[in-house]
Amino acid sequence: MQRVTPESLVDALKSHFGDRCSTALAVREQHGKDESIFDVPPPSAVVFAESTKDVAAAVQMAAKHQTPVIPFGTGSSLEGHLLAVQGGISIDVSRMNKVLSINAEDLTVTVQAGVTRKAVNEAIKNEGLFFPIDPGADASIGGMVATRASGTNAVRYGTMRENVLALEVVTASGEIIRTGTRAKKSSAGYDLTRLMVGSEGTLGVVTEITLKLYPLPEAISAAVCSFPSIEAAVRTTIQIIQIGIPIARVELIDANSIRAVNAYSKLDLNPSPMLLMEFHGSPASVKEQAELVQDIATEFGGTAFDWASTPEARTKLWTARHNAYFAAVQSRPGCRVITTDTCVPISRLADCLLETIYEADASGIPYFLVGHVGDGNFHVGYLIDPASKLEHDTAEALNHQLVKRALAMDGTCTGEHGVGLHKMGFLVEEAGTGAVQMMRNIKHALDPDNIMNPGKIFTW
Amino acid sequence: MQRVTPESLVDALKSHFGDRCSTALAVREQHGKDESIFDVPPPSAVVFAESTKDVAAAVQMAAKHQTPVIPFGTGSSLEGHLLAVQGGISIDVSRMNKVLSINAEDLTVTVQAGVTRKAVNEAIKNEGLFFPIDPGADASIGGMVATRASGTNAVRYGTMRENVLALEVVTASGEIIRTGTRAKKSSAGYDLTRLMVGSEGTLGVVTEITLKLYPLPEAISAAVCSFPSIEAAVRTTIQIIQIGIPIARVELIDANSIRAVNAYSKLDLNPSPMLLMEFHGSPASVKEQAELVQDIATEFGGTAFDWASTPEARTKLWTARHNAYFAAVQSRPGCRVITTDTCVPISRLADCLLETIYEADASGIPYFLVGHVGDGNFHVGYLIDPASKLEHDTAEALNHQLVKRALAMDGTCTGEHGVGLHKMGFLVEEAGTGAVQMMRNIKHALDPDNIMNPGKIFTW
Repeated sequence: MQRVTPESLVDALKSHFGDRCSTALAVREQHGKDESIFDVPPPSAVVFAESTKDVAAAVQMAAKHQTPVIPFGTGSSLEGHLLAVQGGISIDVSRMNKVLSINAEDLTVTVQAGVTRKAVNEAIKNEGLFFPIDPGADASIGGMVATRASGTNAVRYGTMRENVLALEVVTASGEIIRTGTRAKKSSAGYDLTRLMVGSEGTLGVVTEITLKLYPLPEAISAAVCSFPSIEAAVRTTIQIIQIGIPIARVELIDANSIRAVNAYSKLDLNPSPMLLMEFHGSPASVKEQAELVQDIATEFGGTAFDWASTPEARTKLWTARHNAYFAAVQSRPGCRVITTDTCVPISRLADCLLETIYEADASGIPYFLVGHVGDGNFHVGYLIDPASKLEHDTAEALNHQLVKRALAMDGTCTGEHGVGLHKMGFLVEEAGTGAVQMMRNIKHALDPDNIMNPGKIFTW
Repeated sequence: MQRVTPESLVDALKSHFGDRCSTALAVREQHGKDESIFDVPPPSAVVFAESTKDVAAAVQMAAKHQTPVIPFGTGSSLEGHLLAVQGGISIDVSRMNKVLSINAEDLTVTVQAGVTRKAVNEAIKNEGLFFPIDPGADASIGGMVATRASGTNAVRYGTMRENVLALEVVTASGEIIRTGTRAKKSSAGYDLTRLMVGSEGTLGVVTEITLKLYPLPEAISAAVCSFPSIEAAVRTTIQIIQIGIPIARVELIDANSIRAVNAYSKLDLNPSPMLLMEFHGSPASVKEQAELVQDIATEFGGTAFDWASTPEARTKLWTARHNAYFAAVQSRPGCRVITTDTCVPISRLADCLLETIYEADASGIPYFLVGHVGDGNFHVGYLIDPASKLEHDTAEALNHQLVKRALAMDGTCTGEHGVGLHKMGFLVEEAGTGAVQMMRNIKHALDPDNIMNPGKIFTW
């Protein structure tokens, strides 16, 4: 249900923010689209916030007019998170791009919400530190908080859930609160930090984030290994995890993805299922981990265990992985992507993957598959013709079947992309009506007028 | 404010639960006391639940009479969490002591809330797995969820915040919900699991818990090292953490504690500040970590680096550490303990500790100090004469000064014990009125009649 944004609100925003409030169609359209498949009218206005005070002022004005507010970072979300499904205004935080304090001794950094993950790493690299969470896009940290993002390093370093120490948040009434301190652990009251992480802008606008950092490993080595089948690659992964090797990355790429990446990045990777792995630690420990993994891989028929020990070779490898999504999109010109995001307990991963591939192959729709398999999380991207209702419906049906399968295995419908618009139904299947009602009760208590990114995660 | 428990509720509970509902004074008194310093009248009745259904039935009956419900595990909380400050009934979950499923391949276990941490480890040890979280007492897992407990292994393995995958919870209306799946990560809606962890029974009664487990390390070695001063021990710790050595435990014990432990456990440990450390990993990695740490310790004047490589020697060492609290209590017969629990960013730990010791020494009150120093968390236990108002007030004033110091250093008033009754004022100082009001709004939404452990964490 679209709500009408009152003219008087737009006037008030323009008078307060000057040319930092735009109603130009191109600007609004850019802020009304993400990587998802939905087409929704754009927001009525876009405010470019430069400070927490700006965000608070914009939210206060919107609250006065009971008008929706949608935070915008880089626009890379995949599930329709930033679409103005009920109208309202977009608050763009990309100009809030300051690294506020680096506390190298404490392994923490505090940044504004618009700083991207790559910018964080650029700012801290001279301190010998890094921030591991890496969704595919160079997303804003605020957006990564909102979707509880993870990526390729989560198998060792955890997700945004584990790596956010504290937040500054503008609430639905435009008040500014802090949700924690820089202490590494705390039992001081409800965990508002974790409540905000993954709340997709529905409980407040995140304006500042204190993150955990890690010392750059003394040694890093990366390897690729080809396998005769997806199953062999997955069985290798399961054994690596179960015996407790502290592998830093273990990513599955299927043959479809490799063909797309080869074409996109002009590489000549062997087009068979592949694990990309990375080991972090002291030189001796990295060597030991890698030897153990090589033994396991060999046992499952892994071949062509290629090492990339120089930073350049590693960057090339991981750039290929990070480009898999865009490479696949380009492999079918004009297509749109329906992406799945299930995550299951690792003992069920092989079954889940193989049944899914069987169905995907049978459907005839072009697809690619990549997986953070060390976590039991994988993505199938169905490359559909946007003009074909049949392909759209088939892909959505495959997605639903996959979600059902994952839930039956005690897994989740979304490992890292969030619910957004796309998985609202799945959330109810997964969590049950009682738990979703509890989420709704929290939403009603913290945002009684339903102005914070309304219509996402669950229905009001 | 005491509320009166209606006779009709007690009658209904007795009729439903038979002799599993007790109103005997001794039983009520045992359930109305924890390790804290408060004296409060006991609950009106105690229900011994044997299943989630029992808990739901008891909560439903209490809800009908708007009567408080207080979950009880082992009674080892330190901040008055289980005291019936507003009257009501205690739900004892200690008979809910079943390990429901061990999923060794997924490194997870699901238990009922009354299972203790030692019982978990006993149940899984033949699988080659362990559960690392170890508060001083052999607490119930439900209680550990409620207080967001941690302990000596948190520096490497995290706290209950990081190690609970999913919960089953009985809500304030007596409904049973699940807050997650066994997937290692998820972005499916609000993080109800983390909201419940640390909520101290104020949002629901935890009935089942799915925990993360870890493979038993291939090699473990433990060491003690004496230092010429607390400062030297702390500087050693800070350097260990800052260079990223994955130490599994690093505990500080002051000379007062060592003297008490020597007397209590008939040991002859050197009565000077000491670090107890443990290293987990492959044999080569453990050796490498230990050598690095020994070099750092030596640089700061550490001496008598003693190794305990056999399980028996290690158990003796850690038993001494875990007994420190009870040993100290016995060192001043008849005393009660006021325990502090601040946690600060590690760069501020030395300053925080030294100023605290200076004040404690000046006060003349006997005390001991132990610290999970790798996390920046330490406890001063003031051993006060319960008959002396002066000692009580002095100890409370020292605690308050310490909290102010920790907050000024961007730390927390409680690293792992929780807020309970004792730190309600401190929570407001730490989080600010806006954040506490947000917690309160959540409480009002999920427990509108204020029956779930009322009067804890914050005022209604």
